[in-house]
Amino acid sequence: MINKMDDLYHTICERKKADPNDSYTAQLFDRGTDAIAKKVGEEAVETIIEAIGKRKNGLIYESVDLLYHLMVLWADSNVKLEDIWDEMARRSIESGLEEKAKRVKT
Amino acid sequence: MINKMDDLYHTICERKKADPNDSYTAQLFDRGTDAIAKKVGEEAVETIIEAIGKRKNGLIYESVDLLYHLMVLWADSNVKLEDIWDEMARRSIESGLEEKAKRVKT
Amino acid sequence: MINKMDDLYHTICERKKADPNDSYTAQLFDRGTDAIAKKVGEEAVETIIEAIGKRKNGLIYESVDLLYHLMVLWADSNVKLEDIWDEMARRSIESGLEEKAKRVKT
Amino acid sequence: MINKMDDLYHTICERKKADPNDSYTAQLFDRGTDAIAKKVGEEAVETIIEAIGKRKNGLIYESVDLLYHLMVLWADSNVKLEDIWDEMARRSIESGLEEKAKRVKT
Repeated sequence: MINKMDDLYHTICERKKADPNDSYTAQLFDRGTDAIAKKVGEEAVETIIEAIGKRKNGLIYESVDLLYHLMVLWADSNVKLEDIWDEMARRSIESGLEEKAKRVKT
Repeated sequence: MINKMDDLYHTICERKKADPNDSYTAQLFDRGTDAIAKKVGEEAVETIIEAIGKRKNGLIYESVDLLYHLMVLWADSNVKLEDIWDEMARRSIESGLEEKAKRVKT
Repeated sequence: MINKMDDLYHTICERKKADPNDSYTAQLFDRGTDAIAKKVGEEAVETIIEAIGKRKNGLIYESVDLLYHLMVLWADSNVKLEDIWDEMARRSIESGLEEKAKRVKT
Repeated sequence: MINKMDDLYHTICERKKADPNDSYTAQLFDRGTDAIAKKVGEEAVETIIEAIGKRKNGLIYESVDLLYHLMVLWADSNVKLEDIWDEMARRSIESGLEEKAKRVKT
């Protein structure tokens, strides 16, 4: 299976060098961190509203919008996708250990 | 490379059957859509605040929290990870075509 | 001193009967609760960003936008301004008692 | 009628000088702008969720929480309540003129 986030993140990072007139992503980088953060907040709100309304297709659509703008925020801050996966792996290990500890305890 | 989101999503979906006393994820499912959506909103706010404050490590940490709770929201709504990747691929194709059209135009 | 929130809330409630073509407020009522809630979320995000950026004028401007959309949300749910003030008074009394209790304790 | 926001805002501003051990409000000031802004974001999310769920009492309760934390954010940034009412009045005048213009136009 192709890792879609890696593909999209690669494209997003490429757009940092693109002309803002040619690409919405390049426009976002051009407008800066505050503007990108604002979009992440807006898309999170839309994602929440779709989930609460039990609109599965809307939830999928808005979640992808949220992921996309979140990735633009990462690229803007020079975060590498590996940084995200490493932190995720670290948490998964902790969470697994914690769950095991709880099961032993009870 | 291992796809960390697939791994974590698999674990999250497994926890739907777990005892809420054993797992934080199972507790979230037990509390329901509104409670999970609220957590997604909170983590989005924290992610934004770290990004604006130019705290890269904080941004990574809160982004993983956001992704985790977003995945719990997906699992709660029976969204498959493939639904997300499909929508992401559909957008990437559209975006690529749009960008090409703009470059030809100018 | 004139209570500006009362004045504005009165106007907002009047607009529930207005033609959506004549008034932005009437348009919001016409689009429904989800759309109004989304605007409240967006304005809250903008308010936060201005506050963190220490832009006092921006904070004032976005706060008024937030208050306005919050009032539209109240009117949409048939909340009376008295309901808000009553709850606020109830909390103030509790908070005062709690603070007094803490000072006695320490 | 007593203006509850003025009363509460006066109390909040007084707490800037209070001991964080004695008062939740003083604790918020002590934790700083980011922490207060985060609370504003969280309360906005909770307000939205109650409104969408058509829980009128929940909407009133969370709205008061939102207003309270918003006022703490204002006090933290040395915003005067008059600054808010002045901006609100300025908008109301503009909005009234705009609405009148639209009605004449159509």
